[in-house]
Amino acid sequence: MSFIIQKIKELGLELPPAPKPVGAYIPAIRTGNLIFTSGILPVIDGKVIYTKEIGGFLNSVSRGYDAAKLCALNALSVINDIAGLDNIERIIKVTGFVNSAPSFNDQPKVINGASELLVSIFGENGKHVRSAVGVNELPLLASVELELIVQVK
Amino acid sequence: MSFIIQKIKELGLELPPAPKPVGAYIPAIRTGNLIFTSGILPVIDGKVIYTKEIGGFLNSVSRGYDAAKLCALNALSVINDIAGLDNIERIIKVTGFVNSAPSFNDQPKVINGASELLVSIFGENGKHVRSAVGVNELPLLASVELELIVQVK
Amino acid sequence: MSFIIQKIKELGLELPPAPKPVGAYIPAIRTGNLIFTSGILPVIDGKVIYTKEIGGFLNSVSRGYDAAKLCALNALSVINDIAGLDNIERIIKVTGFVNSAPSFNDQPKVINGASELLVSIFGENGKHVRSAVGVNELPLLASVELELIVQVK
Repeated sequence: MSFIIQKIKELGLELPPAPKPVGAYIPAIRTGNLIFTSGILPVIDGKVIYTKEIGGFLNSVSRGYDAAKLCALNALSVINDIAGLDNIERIIKVTGFVNSAPSFNDQPKVINGASELLVSIFGENGKHVRSAVGVNELPLLASVELELIVQVK
Repeated sequence: MSFIIQKIKELGLELPPAPKPVGAYIPAIRTGNLIFTSGILPVIDGKVIYTKEIGGFLNSVSRGYDAAKLCALNALSVINDIAGLDNIERIIKVTGFVNSAPSFNDQPKVINGASELLVSIFGENGKHVRSAVGVNELPLLASVELELIVQVK
Repeated sequence: MSFIIQKIKELGLELPPAPKPVGAYIPAIRTGNLIFTSGILPVIDGKVIYTKEIGGFLNSVSRGYDAAKLCALNALSVINDIAGLDNIERIIKVTGFVNSAPSFNDQPKVINGASELLVSIFGENGKHVRSAVGVNELPLLASVELELIVQVK
């Protein structure tokens, strides 16, 4: 069994099925030894689970954190489909867009949901660069959209 | 004649002259076998043709779609200038920022204007990863700003 | 002494200490001959110096320009820490997110603060592709967030 999928289980989590694209694109692509994912939403079974802006009345930071964590799991799933998670050498970059209520400035605490998960799973090789950015609207009303760049063997 | 420019003509379209930068940067750059473009606006002859937010009273999704398509043509034009379109091996990534009215969540349908064009032109090699993101403002009041990463021979 | 740090001094500037990450990530990473930075804020000594939206009552374009310039210096500092500035072969890409007041569309003039600095320092090798994007909120209320991709020897 995959070492990384085992590790995900040990964290009490499960690799979800890779979400299907919501437009005319593919979920992940390899060029050289890098894999780029598409912008990944907090989806389960085709349904966006975390919706609407973070930091307003509806969604606390902790809900945003969970959304980012789900995005990261989904992103790993699309990478698994094209390359196998055990072939990931290092996580290079996370870009996280946070649907942000006016005056909400804790985007880093939200995207930590993805970053901390990646370090939990990949250890030293999970340490990555990151941008966390607030935006006013995201596709399908999602709370978070997340991209990964990883280096593979 | 360029095979790709021929293909663009067969689609009833024309490769526009590459838009000039609107600041202290260059339109496209090659590193290794990747070309990155700058953020490209829906410009013709130096004038932004599609302005203001999508999804409000002014601009329907279909107008956003056309804006994204024009951005993609302009992006191909800047790539043509530095490498020649026939040297594109694969489209790797599209990043599309959509000037979005409050509560507008159909960014994917807008950026399909770019994605579907790229697949029409490049076929299997046009399939790419993509992020579609809503933002509150874009340079020069543009409705869409689009980046491309392509792999060249 | 570093040729580039000397050049920065000749411009009357100083390389600041590299800002510490504000979340579970690292400031810069090398993959192949590219270095990606995280999203860098206009910070001095751990404090965000330029805050709130650009283009409203509080912050003029010229203040945004200064914020972008500080972000670029900070980004060079994090690159210096992992690779040494004299090992930069070329600046590849700048991505600048501008905390934008409603109806503010001069993001390019803001991000010129970073772009013009990079060309002043690196000359021909400082010419890069760029995206300037308006957003409604940024981490820690920052006015600008900036990413760099550079190619190293």
